[in-house]
Amino acid sequence: MNQTSAYDELQDHIRDLKTPSIETWENKYSDKEYTIEITNLEFSAICPKTGLPDYATICITYIPDKDCVELKSLKEYFVFFRDVGIFHEHVINKVLEDFVAACQPRKVEVFGDFNIRGGMKTKVHASYVKE
Amino acid sequence: MNQTSAYDELQDHIRDLKTPSIETWENKYSDKEYTIEITNLEFSAICPKTGLPDYATICITYIPDKDCVELKSLKEYFVFFRDVGIFHEHVINKVLEDFVAACQPRKVEVFGDFNIRGGMKTKVHASYVKE
Amino acid sequence: MNQTSAYDELQDHIRDLKTPSIETWENKYSDKEYTIEITNLEFSAICPKTGLPDYATICITYIPDKDCVELKSLKEYFVFFRDVGIFHEHVINKVLEDFVAACQPRKVEVFGDFNIRGGMKTKVHASYVKE
Amino acid sequence: MNQTSAYDELQDHIRDLKTPSIETWENKYSDKEYTIEITNLEFSAICPKTGLPDYATICITYIPDKDCVELKSLKEYFVFFRDVGIFHEHVINKVLEDFVAACQPRKVEVFGDFNIRGGMKTKVHASYVKE
Amino acid sequence: MNQTSAYDELQDHIRDLKTPSIETWENKYSDKEYTIEITNLEFSAICPKTGLPDYATICITYIPDKDCVELKSLKEYFVFFRDVGIFHEHVINKVLEDFVAACQPRKVEVFGDFNIRGGMKTKVHASYVKE
Amino acid sequence: MNQTSAYDELQDHIRDLKTPSIETWENKYSDKEYTIEITNLEFSAICPKTGLPDYATICITYIPDKDCVELKSLKEYFVFFRDVGIFHEHVINKVLEDFVAACQPRKVEVFGDFNIRGGMKTKVHASYVKE
Amino acid sequence: MNQTSAYDELQDHIRDLKTPSIETWENKYSDKEYTIEITNLEFSAICPKTGLPDYATICITYIPDKDCVELKSLKEYFVFFRDVGIFHEHVINKVLEDFVAACQPRKVEVFGDFNIRGGMKTKVHASYVKE
Amino acid sequence: MNQTSAYDELQDHIRDLKTPSIETWENKYSDKEYTIEITNLEFSAICPKTGLPDYATICITYIPDKDCVELKSLKEYFVFFRDVGIFHEHVINKVLEDFVAACQPRKVEVFGDFNIRGGMKTKVHASYVKE
Amino acid sequence: MNQTSAYDELQDHIRDLKTPSIETWENKYSDKEYTIEITNLEFSAICPKTGLPDYATICITYIPDKDCVELKSLKEYFVFFRDVGIFHEHVINKVLEDFVAACQPRKVEVFGDFNIRGGMKTKVHASYVKE
Amino acid sequence: MNQTSAYDELQDHIRDLKTPSIETWENKYSDKEYTIEITNLEFSAICPKTGLPDYATICITYIPDKDCVELKSLKEYFVFFRDVGIFHEHVINKVLEDFVAACQPRKVEVFGDFNIRGGMKTKVHASYVKE
Repeated sequence: MNQTSAYDELQDHIRDLKTPSIETWENKYSDKEYTIEITNLEFSAICPKTGLPDYATICITYIPDKDCVELKSLKEYFVFFRDVGIFHEHVINKVLEDFVAACQPRKVEVFGDFNIRGGMKTKVHASYVKE
Repeated sequence: MNQTSAYDELQDHIRDLKTPSIETWENKYSDKEYTIEITNLEFSAICPKTGLPDYATICITYIPDKDCVELKSLKEYFVFFRDVGIFHEHVINKVLEDFVAACQPRKVEVFGDFNIRGGMKTKVHASYVKE
Repeated sequence: MNQTSAYDELQDHIRDLKTPSIETWENKYSDKEYTIEITNLEFSAICPKTGLPDYATICITYIPDKDCVELKSLKEYFVFFRDVGIFHEHVINKVLEDFVAACQPRKVEVFGDFNIRGGMKTKVHASYVKE
Repeated sequence: MNQTSAYDELQDHIRDLKTPSIETWENKYSDKEYTIEITNLEFSAICPKTGLPDYATICITYIPDKDCVELKSLKEYFVFFRDVGIFHEHVINKVLEDFVAACQPRKVEVFGDFNIRGGMKTKVHASYVKE
Repeated sequence: MNQTSAYDELQDHIRDLKTPSIETWENKYSDKEYTIEITNLEFSAICPKTGLPDYATICITYIPDKDCVELKSLKEYFVFFRDVGIFHEHVINKVLEDFVAACQPRKVEVFGDFNIRGGMKTKVHASYVKE
Repeated sequence: MNQTSAYDELQDHIRDLKTPSIETWENKYSDKEYTIEITNLEFSAICPKTGLPDYATICITYIPDKDCVELKSLKEYFVFFRDVGIFHEHVINKVLEDFVAACQPRKVEVFGDFNIRGGMKTKVHASYVKE
Repeated sequence: MNQTSAYDELQDHIRDLKTPSIETWENKYSDKEYTIEITNLEFSAICPKTGLPDYATICITYIPDKDCVELKSLKEYFVFFRDVGIFHEHVINKVLEDFVAACQPRKVEVFGDFNIRGGMKTKVHASYVKE
Repeated sequence: MNQTSAYDELQDHIRDLKTPSIETWENKYSDKEYTIEITNLEFSAICPKTGLPDYATICITYIPDKDCVELKSLKEYFVFFRDVGIFHEHVINKVLEDFVAACQPRKVEVFGDFNIRGGMKTKVHASYVKE
Repeated sequence: MNQTSAYDELQDHIRDLKTPSIETWENKYSDKEYTIEITNLEFSAICPKTGLPDYATICITYIPDKDCVELKSLKEYFVFFRDVGIFHEHVINKVLEDFVAACQPRKVEVFGDFNIRGGMKTKVHASYVKE
Repeated sequence: MNQTSAYDELQDHIRDLKTPSIETWENKYSDKEYTIEITNLEFSAICPKTGLPDYATICITYIPDKDCVELKSLKEYFVFFRDVGIFHEHVINKVLEDFVAACQPRKVEVFGDFNIRGGMKTKVHASYVKE
């Protein structure tokens, strides 16, 4: 199985991809609703079609509940994708699911702004609200 | 029939103009509502009045249902218009109809920002919501 | 009667001022609501107080019904004001009335952004909705 | 009584401060609701604490009723403040009251954006709606 | 107990941290609802993890009730944090609580935009409404 | 002779076109070399090809000798071109010659930045140095 | 011979490619050195490698001698490249040679700023001085 | 003698206008050539023609010799002009002469960027080099 | 030997690091001096100190001699650094040497603009001229 | 001796102020002249007049000789100033001297851009060339 096939394989099972855990700390103001926005200006992954690097800015905006995400472990979580072949749409949905699992926020939005390819620009936006 | 007449003819039958198909892939997160925005910074068509090239940025924002559009085939779909004489308003409505036919999204907006002509700038905005 | 008096006279009868007609073409997508925005970056008229030229950007945003305005005739309509002494507020209301009369849109907004005079900037915004 | 004391005195009686009148002209389109925005990019007053000049941009956005404000007299009204020691918050509330008294608009907003002092920037926003 | 431990200790008791009082003056227009926005472009505190300085812009937007905050004492209040080891999220919640205690506004929002660290940017937003 | 022919005629004799005089005042610092830059953000003339208005920003930078140009008369000089059919290149060279004749500066540069036409932008730059 | 081979063939003989002539008009101020800058914001050609459209801004800055280039014919000259498969570097050198042949300027610079491809941006700059 | 006449009178004797002194402090690094740039973003004077306020940004760039200018006294020096009717060109030359007299720098440039009046912008630039 | 030690080892022998070759094509206009600027907006390498990714924009400006660099192979050359632990200063000098070896240009400049780390930004600039 | 007097005392002996050492590493490309620019976006010191914090961006551009400065120790060097009462002009000259002593570069420029105080902005620029 060559590299591109491996990437295709991955896309079919993207929801099962095992990613590093994101650490959290106890929110001292969990009695209040407030908003935290964390922007990673240096996201990079691999394009499954070409095997070449993709670049993006990814912004997470959330209202914490019991826990806040620890910034350093979040950065390391993002670095994990550096060698992963994955579509833009999958990146954003995957990050959303992992983030919700990690800190169970009251609300979270994940937004990705991917670099131009062939004169075309792609942005993807997904969100979650705790019921 | 000269070139300009041919263009006029085309405008009357613009809704019948046959365009290339846009390919799609299966949306693995179709259980969720999320948004994809694709911007073509390099759209070009022909002005039916003068026969000279027109230039525009066209942005498609959609919430996918079962299928996502494949980026490369979308780019080729846009390149098709490069030799087509067509009004700004028609471009946007035509792209909207073709896009809906291709991937049947839950919702889609098509926005075109056309270059200045004679000190005048034109923008056109159309949208669709699945009932 | 001097020039300035003539301008004053005009302001009192501004709603009767006869302006060039704006041509239209048949909207092929009149079964759908979509938006067209036309910006004239090069509007000029005469200040009735000083007799000197005024400059502005005027933006028309409308949802067409049966007819779309023809861009070239709209430009010539605007050029008509180049030698007319008229207040900023009157320009925008006059353009709105003429535009509605020409193409009877479902909805239209007219916005004017006039150049700085004496450290003061004026913007005027008017709109119309078909009942 | 020294200069600073005089300024303090003024703040206590700020609502009684007599300012120049703002002239108006008859609104020919008073049957319609439309918006006029006038921005003074060159507002200046005196800081009551230091006796030094303050600078600001002040923007008035209003829906006229029977009368529109005359631009030249509005400019002269603003110039009056050039030698007045007055707090930022008082400037905006005072201008609002005087403006309402002058032309009795359907609605008006007054916004002031004051220059940085000691690394701190102040903006003040007040509004009025005719009942 | 070393410096970093001291910082950790502080985070656990952050809601008890004693800060300088913020002075106020009587709002002469308390019969009206209007908005004041004060932006500190030069906030600095210490990162509890590294002991190195952090930098941020902090913006407070409030609708005063009986009292307005005095700008100079607010600046000195902010300077207090210059030697305090404190998390971004805590800064904003702490400032919000202190501000509410000082002037009991009808409404207030506190927003902090912290400088990039390791390619990651953090913004925090908290608010309060008097019941 | 129709309008367009008249314009063509004018281009051939452009150096003979009689323009309004530019007034001057005595330079009190003529013992020193210093620079004055005056930018007209609102220049307009007629395109000889189409008869439609052209728009440009024109900037004059000069080192005065015995005389400085009077700003108000310079503005009126520019307004003269509003009804003149003239090429971009001719505008700049004509303004340069008239300016030199009016105040005989030590040095002067005239720069014009004309609005986009058909996706093409034109800038023209001419200068003079007294020998 | 397929399309790509045809493009390769063209690159080898690029200096022999026959292009449309650029018209000129007599420079009435040829006794003076002045500068004209013409920027085409809408240049497009074909990438010989992929057969897909390329986009660029091309700026020509020249000091005319006996002749100035006629703007409309220059625009048509540029439109010719719309269907030509040609490298970025060749475009700029070709335009330079054709421009010099057309109007024999005292000096000319040609600068091209080509759109991003694969995260890489290319600019090319060539010039000519009459000896 | 009315106010405007008084202003005219002043222009004739502008070089004799008595202005506040600018204080200095001893340059501890006078053995080295280095550059200090001080920009006053809030300069204001009176237009002698209209009696209305003018606004400008004034930038002083100098290489100190034995003395540096004291910032607070420089600010007060600028505030003096707030009630002086004076032409743009005179402001810059006057500031230059006063600055040289105050600190006798090795070199100094004074640049003024005055706000738009009637669509026209004026900038003035003067300089001095110690021989 | 751990990862960081390996990185340190590499820095000492950085001039011996073997990198992928950069392909070239024959410059058809080598009889002329012209300039090509290629900017890689998506450079990434590893920080030898932390093992975390670094990001930069790298711009190469050169005057070709017999050969031009082939864009695709240059991109692949840059991708090679993605997994290399290397200092900013070394990146630029290494790229310069490799580029000169590949196409032996008449002149070349390499400029790197690296992302902020700890509130500090680094840019490095190196160049070569053929003798 | 109060705090302000202590600051004054310091200014007189500023050239004797003991600052932390800046570490260096061996320049592997010292056979070549290349340029490194390091910008500290987060410089802060104390204003000796008011005792309040000052903020600035400081940029060092140098051509290394045998040694390059180590970035982390440079940052710590800058942090030292956080509690030092010192004039803008002294900061830049002091940093220049310390930097030269640390790495003895072929050439270095130090530039500081200090935040607005009282509507006035100060920039200071100093440089050194090895003889």
